[in-house]
Amino acid sequence: MTFTPPTAEQLLALEVNAGIGELAESERFAAATPDLVAAIVEGIGNFAASEWAPLNRIGDTEGATLEDGVVTLPDGFAEAYRAYVEAGWNALAAPEEFGGQGLPFSLAACVTENLGAANMAFDLLPVLTVGSIEALLKHGSEEQQQRYLPRLVSGEWSGTMNLTEPQAGSDVGALRTTATPIEDGPHAGKYRIAGTKIYITWGEHELSGNIVHLVLARTPGAPSGSRGISLFIVPKFHVKPDGTAGERNDLRAVGLEHKLGINASPTCVMSYGDNDECIGELVGRENEGLRAMFTMMNHARINVGNQGVHIAERALQQACAYAADRVQSARAGSADKDPVAIVEHPDVRRMLLRMRALTEGARALLYYACGRVDRGALGDETAQARADLLVPMVKSWCTEIGSEVASLGIQVHGGMGFVEETGAAQHYRDARIAQIYEGTNGIQAADLVTRKLGMEGGGVLFALMDEIAGEAGDAPMLADLARDCRQIAEWMVSDASLDDKLGGSVPFQTMCAVCVAGWQLLRQQRALEGRGASGTLATTKPVVVRFFLDRIVPEARGLKAAATGGGALLYELSSEDLVA
Amino acid sequence: MTFTPPTAEQLLALEVNAGIGELAESERFAAATPDLVAAIVEGIGNFAASEWAPLNRIGDTEGATLEDGVVTLPDGFAEAYRAYVEAGWNALAAPEEFGGQGLPFSLAACVTENLGAANMAFDLLPVLTVGSIEALLKHGSEEQQQRYLPRLVSGEWSGTMNLTEPQAGSDVGALRTTATPIEDGPHAGKYRIAGTKIYITWGEHELSGNIVHLVLARTPGAPSGSRGISLFIVPKFHVKPDGTAGERNDLRAVGLEHKLGINASPTCVMSYGDNDECIGELVGRENEGLRAMFTMMNHARINVGNQGVHIAERALQQACAYAADRVQSARAGSADKDPVAIVEHPDVRRMLLRMRALTEGARALLYYACGRVDRGALGDETAQARADLLVPMVKSWCTEIGSEVASLGIQVHGGMGFVEETGAAQHYRDARIAQIYEGTNGIQAADLVTRKLGMEGGGVLFALMDEIAGEAGDAPMLADLARDCRQIAEWMVSDASLDDKLGGSVPFQTMCAVCVAGWQLLRQQRALEGRGASGTLATTKPVVVRFFLDRIVPEARGLKAAATGGGALLYELSSEDLVA
Repeated sequence: MTFTPPTAEQLLALEVNAGIGELAESERFAAATPDLVAAIVEGIGNFAASEWAPLNRIGDTEGATLEDGVVTLPDGFAEAYRAYVEAGWNALAAPEEFGGQGLPFSLAACVTENLGAANMAFDLLPVLTVGSIEALLKHGSEEQQQRYLPRLVSGEWSGTMNLTEPQAGSDVGALRTTATPIEDGPHAGKYRIAGTKIYITWGEHELSGNIVHLVLARTPGAPSGSRGISLFIVPKFHVKPDGTAGERNDLRAVGLEHKLGINASPTCVMSYGDNDECIGELVGRENEGLRAMFTMMNHARINVGNQGVHIAERALQQACAYAADRVQSARAGSADKDPVAIVEHPDVRRMLLRMRALTEGARALLYYACGRVDRGALGDETAQARADLLVPMVKSWCTEIGSEVASLGIQVHGGMGFVEETGAAQHYRDARIAQIYEGTNGIQAADLVTRKLGMEGGGVLFALMDEIAGEAGDAPMLADLARDCRQIAEWMVSDASLDDKLGGSVPFQTMCAVCVAGWQLLRQQRALEGRGASGTLATTKPVVVRFFLDRIVPEARGLKAAATGGGALLYELSSEDLVA
Repeated sequence: MTFTPPTAEQLLALEVNAGIGELAESERFAAATPDLVAAIVEGIGNFAASEWAPLNRIGDTEGATLEDGVVTLPDGFAEAYRAYVEAGWNALAAPEEFGGQGLPFSLAACVTENLGAANMAFDLLPVLTVGSIEALLKHGSEEQQQRYLPRLVSGEWSGTMNLTEPQAGSDVGALRTTATPIEDGPHAGKYRIAGTKIYITWGEHELSGNIVHLVLARTPGAPSGSRGISLFIVPKFHVKPDGTAGERNDLRAVGLEHKLGINASPTCVMSYGDNDECIGELVGRENEGLRAMFTMMNHARINVGNQGVHIAERALQQACAYAADRVQSARAGSADKDPVAIVEHPDVRRMLLRMRALTEGARALLYYACGRVDRGALGDETAQARADLLVPMVKSWCTEIGSEVASLGIQVHGGMGFVEETGAAQHYRDARIAQIYEGTNGIQAADLVTRKLGMEGGGVLFALMDEIAGEAGDAPMLADLARDCRQIAEWMVSDASLDDKLGGSVPFQTMCAVCVAGWQLLRQQRALEGRGASGTLATTKPVVVRFFLDRIVPEARGLKAAATGGGALLYELSSEDLVA
C-alpha cells in the first residue's frame, strides 16, 4: 500500500492552526518563509513516501531481531536511514550552531507526521534522537553540547530515553539504577552506571554510528522518590578526543520485547554495567534529572499525539483506496441492480467521513498546539500556558482517534481487514502503543485536571473555552460543548474532590480535545472561505467540518455525565469486590 | 493467564434475562430443571477452564498450519477436542432423537460462552458444527438427517459453512461455485461441485473424523443473484453405507489466511472439484439455498455476539488480576506515600468498572435475546419477533464492546499490555474479527433499520422501547434513551429516506442495544434485591448497574445527532472527492 503525503492538508494546518506565517515574522523563525515551508512540506512528503513507506510492511513482518547483543533490522532500513541523514531531514528545528536549521517545532512536526505515516516504527528513531537533543540543549554543559549535539543533529548518531524499570513505570520515581561517582583514573568526575532499563525504544541497532543513551539513575545517598533522580549521558561507544566514536562502553541490549505492533522498532531491555565499567556523565545537577526530563515532555508528548494523526492518515488512505476499488452489492434503493464500489454505500461513506473528520480534526488540534509551543519558545507566556494545557489533549485524544480510525479502516475492508497481508491490521496494531507510552492517556488526564487545570486557578482553561464559545458562530453544538467544558472545569476547580476530578478526567479530556479540534477545523474552513479557495480541499473541508461539528461534537457532549459523575461511585466497592 | 468461569453471573443471566425457569415449564424444555441448569453451567465452566483455557496461548503463538492439504493444530488440541466430545458437551440443544439433549438455546449459549472465553479460536469449531446441525435439522431430508446428524451432534464429525468467494462477501448472491447434476453412475442424483470458497472457518483439520461442508453453489441455468443459490452437503470423506467415513472426496484446503487473531482457528481457502470429482448432495430444493442459510442466521449471529461477551469476560479477568497485583505510585491525595496496587487509583477503577459494566450489560442483552429465541421456538410469535429485532443489536454491540473491553484491558496493563507475552494483546487481536464476520456490524445495522424496523410498521421496536420506558423507574436516563430510540424509529419509519436510515443505522443500533442492555441489567439488580440476595454478586451488581445507567447510557444518548443527521451529508461529496 502506497502512501501519499497529505501536503495540502498539512500546509493548511501549518498556516491556519499553527499560524506559521506569524511565526516567520519573528527574528528566530524568519527563515520559515512560505517558500521554504512549502519546499520542506513537499520535500519530506516525497522523501517519506518514496524511501520509508515501502519498508513499512517488511518492518512489520520481519521486525527487529536480537542476537548476541546485536540488533538487526530488515533489509533496506540502513540505506533508508542513511538517505534520511544525507538529505538533512534530521532535527531541522535544532539551532543552526549545531547544524540544525532553527525552524519552528510546527514544521518539524510536519516532518514527523510524514515519516511516521510512511513508517511509524522507523520514525521513532529520529523522534527519540530529537528528544535527546532537546534535553542536552536545555541541560547539557557547553562541552557536552559540543561533543554530542552536532552528530545527533545530523542524525549520524541517535539518542534514547531510559526511564522505565520493571518496578518503575508510570511511577518513574521508583527507579533503582545507580550512578556512583568515579574519583580517580581516566574517568574521574564521571559516574559508574549500573542497572536494568526496559522498554528502551531503539535502544540498540547499527543504523547510527553511536547511540547516546540518556539514563535516569540515583546517586549514593540521593533522596528517595522522584527528588533523588539524576540524568546521565551514557554513550554506546565512548567518544574519542577527536569527537568520533571509540571503544565500546559497558552496556548492552539483553532482550527485545515481542510486541503487538511497531515491530521494526527494537524495544530493548538494556543492561548497564554488567562488568561494572559502564561510564556515564552527569547532565545538569544531581537530583534534578526528572525536572530535566520534564522540560522535554511537551515535545515528546506532542510527538506521540502526532503518531495518532499519522497512523490515522495512513489507515484512512488505505481504506479510501479499498472503498473506491472494491465492488460489492448494488446501491440500496436503486433501480440499477449492478454492484457498485463500496464507497457508494451509505454506511461505508459514514465510516470514511468519520475517519476523515477525526483525522483532520486531530491534525488541526496537533498543529494548533505546535504553534502555541513555538510562540512559547519566543517568550509568549500566554501561548506557553495554553500549550501546556493542550499537551495532554493532543497526546491522548490524537492517539485515541489513531486507534479508532485504524479500527474503522479494518471495518471498511470487511474480511480482508482481518487478513494481515492487507496491511490494515498493521495500522491497528501499531496504533495501540501510542495510548500507552510517554505517559498513559490516564496519566495525561490526571495531568490535565490537576496541574494544567490548576494554572491560574482554572483561568487558562476557562479562557480557551470562552474563546471557542465566542468564535463558534453558526456552530451552536460547538459553543454548547465549550460551555459544558467550562462548567465542568469550574466544578472541578471549586467543588470537586481530587477523586471526583481524577474519576472524571478521561471523559473530560476527550470533551476538551474534541472541542478544540472542532474549533480549529472551523478555522480551517473559514480560512478557505475567506480566501475564496477552490479545488478539492475547498470542496471537501466544509463537509468534513460539518460532519465533525454536527455528529462528533454531540457525541462528546454525551460524556458530560461520566465527567461529572464523581469519584464516590468508583470507591463504593472494595478493591476485592471490584476485581472479584 | 487462567480463566475462572463466571458461573454466578451466568446463572443470574439465565434466570433473569433468559427466563429459563419459565422455559422449563414447557414440555419441550422440561429437562431444564434448576438442578440440571446449575450442573451444566458449573460443569462446562470447569471443563472449559481446565481443558481448553490452557491451550489459548499456544493456539495463538503456534496457530494452525497447512502443509500438503493437511492442517495441523498445536499439541493438545486433538486431545482437548476428544475430551470435549467424550464429555458430551457438543450440541446439547440438538434433539434427543439424534443424540442431543433438547435443551434451550439459552443454555447452549452458556456452553459457548465458557468454551469461547477459555479459547475463542477453538470454540469456533463446535459453533460451526452446531450451525450445520441446525441447517440439516431444518432443511435436510430424513435420510440426510439420519446419515449426518448423529455424528455431528456427538461432535465425532464437524461442520462448516461455505458462503464467501473472493467476489462474493457481503453480497453472497454474487457467488459462482457451480453444482452440476449427475445423471448416471454411482452418484446419480447428486451434484458435481466446482469452485473456490474463502474464509472457511475450520475448513480443514484432523480433529474430527469427517468434515461436513455446507456449500452454497449455483445449478445450471439458475437465476442470477441470491435467488439462484442452492445448498449442498459436501463431505470431506464420502459416507459409506454403514454410516462411517470412507473414501476422500475431491476437495481440499489450498491456503490458510494469516490473520490478526484467532490463530488457532484455521481459516481456509477451499477448492472443490480440482479433479472434477467433488460430489455433493442437495439440501432442500434448488435455488432455496440462501433462505436455508438465513433460517440459521439468528443463532449464528447471536453466537458471534456471544464471542464479544466471552472475549470481554476473559479480558476483564486478566485486567482485574493485574490491577490487584501490580503496585505502582501512591494513592493521589493520600498522606501515605507508599505505592499501592493500581486498582486503588481512580482512573484504573473507572476502567475496570467500565469493563465490568459493558461485559455484564452485553451478557444481559445476550441471554435476553437467547430467551426470546427459545420462546420463539415454542411458538410464541411475539417473542420470535422480538428475537428477530434483537439479533442485530446482539451481534453488533456485543462485538463492539468485546473490542472496547479488550482495549481497556490492554490500557490497564500499561506497557505490559503491548507485550505479547502478557496475553492482553491476544484478546484485542482475537476480538476484532467478531465485528466483521457473520455479516459486518454495518450489515447488521442495515438489517435493523430496514427489515427489522419494518416489522409491524415499526411496532415491534416501539413496543420494546415503550416497555423499557415503562420499567425504567428510578433510572430516568434509561427512560430518556428509550424515548430517544422510539422517536428516532418513528422518524425512520415515517419520514426518513432509505439513505437517512442507513446513514444513521450504526449509531441508532448502538443506542438501541445500550438501552436494552441497561434495562436487562436493571432487571438483574431488581431480581437480586427481590430475593434479598447477599454475597459478592449482590454487592457488586448495584454499583455496576449504576455505572452503566449513569455513565454509559448518557453516552449513548450523545449518538442521537449522528443517528438522525440524515443521509444527504454523506452524499454531498462526490465519491472521487470523498476518497481523494
